[in-house]
Amino acid sequence: MSLVVIGTLAYDSVETAHDRRENALGGSAMYFAVAAAPYISPLLVGAVGDDWRDEDTELLAKRGVDLAGLEKVAGGKTFRWGGRYEPDWNTRHTTFTELNVLETFDPKLPANYRDAKFVFLANAHPAVQMQGLSQVEAPIFSVADTMNLWIDIARTDLEALMQKIDGLILNDEEARMLTGEDNLIRAAQKVLTMGPKFVILKKGEHGAFIMGEGLHFSLPAYPVTEVIDPTGAGDSFAGGFMGYCAKAGNHSPETLKKAMLHGTVAASYCVQGFSVEDIGQRTMADYDSRYNDLMQIVSL
Amino acid sequence: MSLVVIGTLAYDSVETAHDRRENALGGSAMYFAVAAAPYISPLLVGAVGDDWRDEDTELLAKRGVDLAGLEKVAGGKTFRWGGRYEPDWNTRHTTFTELNVLETFDPKLPANYRDAKFVFLANAHPAVQMQGLSQVEAPIFSVADTMNLWIDIARTDLEALMQKIDGLILNDEEARMLTGEDNLIRAAQKVLTMGPKFVILKKGEHGAFIMGEGLHFSLPAYPVTEVIDPTGAGDSFAGGFMGYCAKAGNHSPETLKKAMLHGTVAASYCVQGFSVEDIGQRTMADYDSRYNDLMQIVSL
Repeated sequence: MSLVVIGTLAYDSVETAHDRRENALGGSAMYFAVAAAPYISPLLVGAVGDDWRDEDTELLAKRGVDLAGLEKVAGGKTFRWGGRYEPDWNTRHTTFTELNVLETFDPKLPANYRDAKFVFLANAHPAVQMQGLSQVEAPIFSVADTMNLWIDIARTDLEALMQKIDGLILNDEEARMLTGEDNLIRAAQKVLTMGPKFVILKKGEHGAFIMGEGLHFSLPAYPVTEVIDPTGAGDSFAGGFMGYCAKAGNHSPETLKKAMLHGTVAASYCVQGFSVEDIGQRTMADYDSRYNDLMQIVSL
Repeated sequence: MSLVVIGTLAYDSVETAHDRRENALGGSAMYFAVAAAPYISPLLVGAVGDDWRDEDTELLAKRGVDLAGLEKVAGGKTFRWGGRYEPDWNTRHTTFTELNVLETFDPKLPANYRDAKFVFLANAHPAVQMQGLSQVEAPIFSVADTMNLWIDIARTDLEALMQKIDGLILNDEEARMLTGEDNLIRAAQKVLTMGPKFVILKKGEHGAFIMGEGLHFSLPAYPVTEVIDPTGAGDSFAGGFMGYCAKAGNHSPETLKKAMLHGTVAASYCVQGFSVEDIGQRTMADYDSRYNDLMQIVSL
């Protein structure tokens, strides 16, 4: 069943303890779409500027991403973000943010996107996420991501969105901030009282768990031995997760559990390279191979 | 099959953000034995002083711990340790250490302990651990714990011990210190080149994994919603792990994987109270019930 993703495309400048990239392809919807593409052709909604490179359009199109919803804003400039990671990977400093075309981003879904059944609202202002979601006629499974900034400055919009979505994806820090609960299990339980039927809580290198409607499933991360750049890992997790659900055509507890493994696999490829240098090359055969490895590691 | 544990007994003074205990029953071998007792009567080897309380002997005996190897040093004083946890639980400050009888601890195994098949060398100086292990005639599965202090000041003794044991249990910080590898998978791989056939790497609230001889199995922690005191969690993990193996009578990959769940269950009860206030009350029925809960959470 079709899968639409609404979110950002960016040019990122990323610095790690070992290497760096300037103006590398990034953005929440971009990472999601590249990660989901081996499962199903994702329908991408986002905005870029005049400076958007044709080669990036080609990369996404070749990957199987549907770009009918990619708006090129005349006279605008693509969103830019800069970040630097401490050697331990756990601390990320934002070195700059240029919103550019995101300042006025108003998602418009092409007519043929509106009957999508699976919807992912990648990280963006919750009012923008709501605006995107409202254009999908009858979604059967809608999931949103968010970030600390929106929990801080757009909490009312986020709370309204939480009434409309089926699932919310958060990392540990965001979950604590949203709920005021230090303990992640209690934090997840509290999120479930705020609207969503499911919550997926990501803990970076320590894995992730899903809770909701009688389901509680926890999974370690895939044991990557060399992290190159963690940027986009959460969006890639979501891409693998939603891509698998959309391909399965349902969100049964069995599907959601397996989708957690698929998300974990996608995130593990993402962190093995800057931008989509690694995951952008990965085929369904690669995904299947690592899925089987992960199954070995977590199966009794 | 019989299980012997060699290690410390202590009186701990522990302070958390919420509460405190003075001179509470503690020590690596004590926590291990209390955790393992529902599976099999552990044979305990350790030393205490004149100040050892009869009520603590009674508690351990009632729990089913064999105390023939508990040496009461005349004129000696029981090992004492003080610690304080930061509100996030991740940082522990040692407030004081009084070695007392441990300064001259020379483990002597009663004759009927020497044919034990399962051996756990709880945290102690690696030369003391070696001395204990050498008295077991033909162990089929010996596992040791250690700590940063010994990696730092007794590395040669620890390296010698690693040639003699089947498995080593470490936490993430210890693994990094022992191997110089930041990445925990690479750290575990390196430990396996240093002697042990298996390494168990504990990540506190983030779970644990075991690697070795074609086995790689990873598990999240049990989702405890209220931590009271993490002291002894690692020793309790080891107690549940080794207790289950000893009861099963083997260390096949299937047994080791299930033992990881049993260790996780034991650790989860340990942290729910100061000292052994919670885990000391837990029966095999409690263990089984939580084991089944954990199975639900990790099974696809």
